[in-house]
Amino acid sequence: MFRHQKELQFEVKVERPDPLFARQVQEVLGGQFGEMTVMMQYLFQGFNCRGDEKYKDMLMDIGTEEIGHVEMLCALISQLLDGAKPEDQEQAAKDPVTAAIMGGINPQHLLVSGLGGLPTSSNGVPWNGSYIVASGNLLADMRSNLHAESQGRLQVARLYHMTQDESVRATLRKMLARDRYHQYQWMAAIQELEEKNGVVVPASFPPEAEQESQPEAFEFWNLSEGEESSEGLWATGSAPDGTGSYVYISNPVAKGQIYNAKIPATELHHDLDHKTSDK
Amino acid sequence: MFRHQKELQFEVKVERPDPLFARQVQEVLGGQFGEMTVMMQYLFQGFNCRGDEKYKDMLMDIGTEEIGHVEMLCALISQLLDGAKPEDQEQAAKDPVTAAIMGGINPQHLLVSGLGGLPTSSNGVPWNGSYIVASGNLLADMRSNLHAESQGRLQVARLYHMTQDESVRATLRKMLARDRYHQYQWMAAIQELEEKNGVVVPASFPPEAEQESQPEAFEFWNLSEGEESSEGLWATGSAPDGTGSYVYISNPVAKGQIYNAKIPATELHHDLDHKTSDK
Amino acid sequence: MFRHQKELQFEVKVERPDPLFARQVQEVLGGQFGEMTVMMQYLFQGFNCRGDEKYKDMLMDIGTEEIGHVEMLCALISQLLDGAKPEDQEQAAKDPVTAAIMGGINPQHLLVSGLGGLPTSSNGVPWNGSYIVASGNLLADMRSNLHAESQGRLQVARLYHMTQDESVRATLRKMLARDRYHQYQWMAAIQELEEKNGVVVPASFPPEAEQESQPEAFEFWNLSEGEESSEGLWATGSAPDGTGSYVYISNPVAKGQIYNAKIPATELHHDLDHKTSDK
Amino acid sequence: MFRHQKELQFEVKVERPDPLFARQVQEVLGGQFGEMTVMMQYLFQGFNCRGDEKYKDMLMDIGTEEIGHVEMLCALISQLLDGAKPEDQEQAAKDPVTAAIMGGINPQHLLVSGLGGLPTSSNGVPWNGSYIVASGNLLADMRSNLHAESQGRLQVARLYHMTQDESVRATLRKMLARDRYHQYQWMAAIQELEEKNGVVVPASFPPEAEQESQPEAFEFWNLSEGEESSEGLWATGSAPDGTGSYVYISNPVAKGQIYNAKIPATELHHDLDHKTSDK
Amino acid sequence: MFRHQKELQFEVKVERPDPLFARQVQEVLGGQFGEMTVMMQYLFQGFNCRGDEKYKDMLMDIGTEEIGHVEMLCALISQLLDGAKPEDQEQAAKDPVTAAIMGGINPQHLLVSGLGGLPTSSNGVPWNGSYIVASGNLLADMRSNLHAESQGRLQVARLYHMTQDESVRATLRKMLARDRYHQYQWMAAIQELEEKNGVVVPASFPPEAEQESQPEAFEFWNLSEGEESSEGLWATGSAPDGTGSYVYISNPVAKGQIYNAKIPATELHHDLDHKTSDK
Amino acid sequence: MFRHQKELQFEVKVERPDPLFARQVQEVLGGQFGEMTVMMQYLFQGFNCRGDEKYKDMLMDIGTEEIGHVEMLCALISQLLDGAKPEDQEQAAKDPVTAAIMGGINPQHLLVSGLGGLPTSSNGVPWNGSYIVASGNLLADMRSNLHAESQGRLQVARLYHMTQDESVRATLRKMLARDRYHQYQWMAAIQELEEKNGVVVPASFPPEAEQESQPEAFEFWNLSEGEESSEGLWATGSAPDGTGSYVYISNPVAKGQIYNAKIPATELHHDLDHKTSDK
Repeated sequence: MFRHQKELQFEVKVERPDPLFARQVQEVLGGQFGEMTVMMQYLFQGFNCRGDEKYKDMLMDIGTEEIGHVEMLCALISQLLDGAKPEDQEQAAKDPVTAAIMGGINPQHLLVSGLGGLPTSSNGVPWNGSYIVASGNLLADMRSNLHAESQGRLQVARLYHMTQDESVRATLRKMLARDRYHQYQWMAAIQELEEKNGVVVPASFPPEAEQESQPEAFEFWNLSEGEESSEGLWATGSAPDGTGSYVYISNPVAKGQIYNAKIPATELHHDLDHKTSDK
Repeated sequence: MFRHQKELQFEVKVERPDPLFARQVQEVLGGQFGEMTVMMQYLFQGFNCRGDEKYKDMLMDIGTEEIGHVEMLCALISQLLDGAKPEDQEQAAKDPVTAAIMGGINPQHLLVSGLGGLPTSSNGVPWNGSYIVASGNLLADMRSNLHAESQGRLQVARLYHMTQDESVRATLRKMLARDRYHQYQWMAAIQELEEKNGVVVPASFPPEAEQESQPEAFEFWNLSEGEESSEGLWATGSAPDGTGSYVYISNPVAKGQIYNAKIPATELHHDLDHKTSDK
Repeated sequence: MFRHQKELQFEVKVERPDPLFARQVQEVLGGQFGEMTVMMQYLFQGFNCRGDEKYKDMLMDIGTEEIGHVEMLCALISQLLDGAKPEDQEQAAKDPVTAAIMGGINPQHLLVSGLGGLPTSSNGVPWNGSYIVASGNLLADMRSNLHAESQGRLQVARLYHMTQDESVRATLRKMLARDRYHQYQWMAAIQELEEKNGVVVPASFPPEAEQESQPEAFEFWNLSEGEESSEGLWATGSAPDGTGSYVYISNPVAKGQIYNAKIPATELHHDLDHKTSDK
Repeated sequence: MFRHQKELQFEVKVERPDPLFARQVQEVLGGQFGEMTVMMQYLFQGFNCRGDEKYKDMLMDIGTEEIGHVEMLCALISQLLDGAKPEDQEQAAKDPVTAAIMGGINPQHLLVSGLGGLPTSSNGVPWNGSYIVASGNLLADMRSNLHAESQGRLQVARLYHMTQDESVRATLRKMLARDRYHQYQWMAAIQELEEKNGVVVPASFPPEAEQESQPEAFEFWNLSEGEESSEGLWATGSAPDGTGSYVYISNPVAKGQIYNAKIPATELHHDLDHKTSDK
Repeated sequence: MFRHQKELQFEVKVERPDPLFARQVQEVLGGQFGEMTVMMQYLFQGFNCRGDEKYKDMLMDIGTEEIGHVEMLCALISQLLDGAKPEDQEQAAKDPVTAAIMGGINPQHLLVSGLGGLPTSSNGVPWNGSYIVASGNLLADMRSNLHAESQGRLQVARLYHMTQDESVRATLRKMLARDRYHQYQWMAAIQELEEKNGVVVPASFPPEAEQESQPEAFEFWNLSEGEESSEGLWATGSAPDGTGSYVYISNPVAKGQIYNAKIPATELHHDLDHKTSDK
Repeated sequence: MFRHQKELQFEVKVERPDPLFARQVQEVLGGQFGEMTVMMQYLFQGFNCRGDEKYKDMLMDIGTEEIGHVEMLCALISQLLDGAKPEDQEQAAKDPVTAAIMGGINPQHLLVSGLGGLPTSSNGVPWNGSYIVASGNLLADMRSNLHAESQGRLQVARLYHMTQDESVRATLRKMLARDRYHQYQWMAAIQELEEKNGVVVPASFPPEAEQESQPEAFEFWNLSEGEESSEGLWATGSAPDGTGSYVYISNPVAKGQIYNAKIPATELHHDLDHKTSDK
């Protein structure tokens, strides 16, 4: 069960409204890697966690923090939109800068939300559940979490340069700092799990079952012209679990058959070899 | 520019058709972490790569390999569906097992694709472009790649137990082996990049800009009851880049204001403080 | 079966083209609460209606009217786009206002529809079937209808202020007037149904089955800090069906268990308690 | 800012696993009117609320409660899936009932979530942001809230009959009771707002602007054959705000023009009146 | 403006309910090529038609007919679902055939629509506006119409074999007959347009602008191993407009540059050549 | 299996960056009829092809070519975005033209892709699998292919007029030329198939099964007022397969019943004829 307190986690202020920037901030609220994503991802991972109280508690801690980040971003967008009104469009005919703002504003900020944050990206695409993952495998999921915080911080960093509003920037700096720490945090959790189970997800698939395929397991197939890719650790190193060394295959040869599918039943109406009197 | 050869990368056979399993295999073809995802993700990362020939070439190598994996899965699904036909449903009334198969089959395998693979998940949801990421930041993207291969291998491992067909299992083992290697590979690339730029994405955001927020940057906020989360490295360790140590905040206090949004213009029709003669 | 006549239900004219406004009008054509939504919602409710000839006929009357509203909005958007052409963008380099219009225009109005209305929102998101509801329960559905007309009229009212074109405004006023009446109409239908069945949806769930839960049924749980919410009728009043009085719980206490999920089978590869030789 | 406590709001238990029912329960978790919808809808309405502290607080109270309902449903689904495993499918060949279960199970419960709740409907369609509304107009939004609780309770009531598991039913009864109260609650809020502002949304659109359209404002257009619709209050009554009486138009006449769109510029390539040398 | 009459266009009856088949029929109601698609596609093409009264009238004739087909399919699905009820699932434990039906039924037919048709595909994916096209170019659009009727008739033909219910089959035969005629009809319209404008869409793009590219315009590039493709008319014939002959390029050579993208500004945070003190 | 070479199929250059145009080019990359669509459509048709080696090879030839077209468009968009940076927005306050560009730019080109192509339309809607079709019936699918190339060429032709950049136009001309040839090519394949099987899809549905419905099979129903539609070949001609002549029905009469659905079981909670004690 959850509780809410009225204070925001961090202060959220703007020096002046900026509806164009409000549209762009939507990306880190309701886009692929926005705060709605990390909020729902950590909560679902926490709700579905089986048998790892420490990790479950951690997921619930951070998931709960992220609900508050969605709240903060709505407060930011509301302030960036303060004072906007439909009539502004009428002024646009006379003033090119107003025209540009009205051209660039998210029309749904006026028409749909009445100056509030929307559960959508900067292009107005609704947030959806396929942005998140909660697979039950903690290592797999925490790799996703590390990735989500990486993309999230990258987008906030890019946003930062799109405004000179020092109050807005102060809020973005808080987000950058939290996203930095959250990257550290998932790295720490990943390190723990890799030390326990090994680095390959899933660890529990029976290695003997995979054995016959081992020859290809360490091959890098050079399927794009040029061999610049031969210079990386993936081509010259060895598996972190010591089970083998990588082989760079400069001229890979296909090992499968030429597949020819069977003719299906007539009732599927592929019209193959069909004798017709139509023509 | 691309070229195609007729042989599949690996042999793809089945001992007997299994339309129920064909539906489930769709998850690793057109689901969130299916082969369409890694194919499109690596290709877009490669196409958009700026200034890193070695990584661009590697991305193109693997992206090109993955197109062939989509091809292999279509060959697998086609064979699992071989011989299925609409009339089977008529038999269902007499035979409970057939009834169960017809209940569990993906109706679009009969009606829409005529026994072919579909660009959809196991629940028939079409693959979409928001499953992938190509941000321009290589470290961020390779974390996504490592994650995608982790989820992909996890799903294939789960699929493996849902069939006893040894020919199918042989194909799945090839996929497991490749997914294992691809995890190694992205780990190697990540290691290279972290050594060069540090572990935080993006590395290039000016640290001094973030400075004022540093106090919170290392705090773990215990927002879910219980302190099990205090036992992890994220709560007791220090930043891998040596810039500070983590602090566990047992009873976090909100630092922001209580935010009250302004009353908007009448033309937005919030109907606040509106005097009406309607009633 | 349906028939079409060539006249529009109401006159639709514009004084001058306005491609920026055309983009915004898309919201009330193909957005969440646009005319496509009420058209498809009323038609599906009518098609699926079971056992209520009067309501079925009414739903078909209004659903049929709404097809004509989609037609009217396409006529409006076509006129707002009249004369726009791809070359306009070339002029933009010289003229900031033209630049702003080209920046704000929906590119699909040029590229995809060739100056026609699109089945999408103002942000270009395609209309989809999850915008509508036809549940078979008339009271539930008519509450949705009242709501849809409320949002629809709100959006048209906001649009009204974004143009000074008196011909456009005349059309919008017709829509405002119809949406006003349609709100009255659904209120009237709701009143009839509530008088017959009571105010709770569904009415037919056996009250005795619900009995053991009655204690909580009338409690308002104060889960957000502050007790401003205690001042409303929901906290101090009683059920309209006279079955009880509301209770404001200032400090709610959770009544459930701490849930710990079971460890799943190894074949799901959660990798819990897994002993590995990987590392 | 939010906080979490470990206890569930109400006890959630099952007598025995039932993976088929787990799939169906997804509808009230991640479907159009599931708990994710009311949670996100109330939170966004609360976050975006302008100038109504009492309503904002109420929205935050209930929105926060609903996060806990998502948590409860995940706990329910986890228990319904307990013990399921991929190998079950192998048993299906021998046992028709198992076959039926494997045919009816959501494959993503095994492959994607590893026995946890998914942010999707009963058909596996991801939850998305267009399920919710937060328009800034409180009366409009609360009509949506009343509707959402009506559909939600209807679906839970239907679900109730699909299981005989008394522990599951006890949880569903709690949900039915809360949904009953939440319907009362939104009705009470609606009553307050209608008394203040009148019943039409939005109340603040200038009535004089609408005046010229008044003739049609009270007409019911009989556009579907048959006059059963003439018997309702909507055809014979008068506006609740006393501004007029309804008129039933048996044979409505279109009042608009026959619209003929203009020929567009050649550069749009409609190919009208095009002289070609192609043929 | 539209009108509705109560009779269905054709009689729609079933001999006995069949909820499994009801799910499958959804494909031709709300799937990619279902009746909702042709209805909305023809209506939008008609609404947006510019300057071709004959075609506009034809589009409106058929679009209006298709609204009635959606109505017919809802009547069919309702009858196929008649008598289904949530309790059936309880019987499933005892009876494998009932179990199979409950496993294969669309859960939303019980939970969401209460035994009515849904605006979704056979897999429950909501219909959406990107299924349709109305481009303004009549020849392009009528090619889409011919295609839609081809896929539609194909799917109905496949459905036909999935039932032995003679009443259902009678309805499907009507649909097959109409879809046959509609294919003829679009072929006739296409023939007219091609005779007038030539066969290439768009006809009006200035041929001289395209000239410099003519060399490649008639080349078939053999990019997949094997030369079976050299045997078709596309490789050996000549353009229907007599402007040239096709050339089969057995070993195509790329004609473009190796593209290396520029390093972007630091503020985009690609982290290229970044010197960091993080590590 | 596939291979990649570094050269682009054709040269792709720009004279100067144009971020506004980059947004518009997205339509032909990731929109409904963009290159991602033809690439995935031809590949899936090729992968799923049963029993037609010549067609399978042709599909693979062209599908493989189209992967290279996606590559070319990403190279085009990257160059159009070269040099754009977040700070540009800051300049916007001073310079109306820059303001207009920032208003019209796709914010995800800065925030999400870091100046690369996105798998989305010009409005930012992600590409999805329901844009494509691979039905197993070659004639049906090739009609789709002809249509896709028609829409694709139409959109490129419209784009062509939106830029004066001669280098960009050179690339667009290559695309126009290829799309012209691809239209010829699918026409040739269609001609072959129609000569073999007849013009109706599917050809193999037993004609005798359809017989009883033949009366309506050749009727044009005039359901929209006005008889302009009587002047086309569809109303006056005869079936290309010689099986009958078309009949124009000026005043069509419905042939079906008035359908009244049955009252459903109480457990579906339609609340019909429900006696309640609620009120």
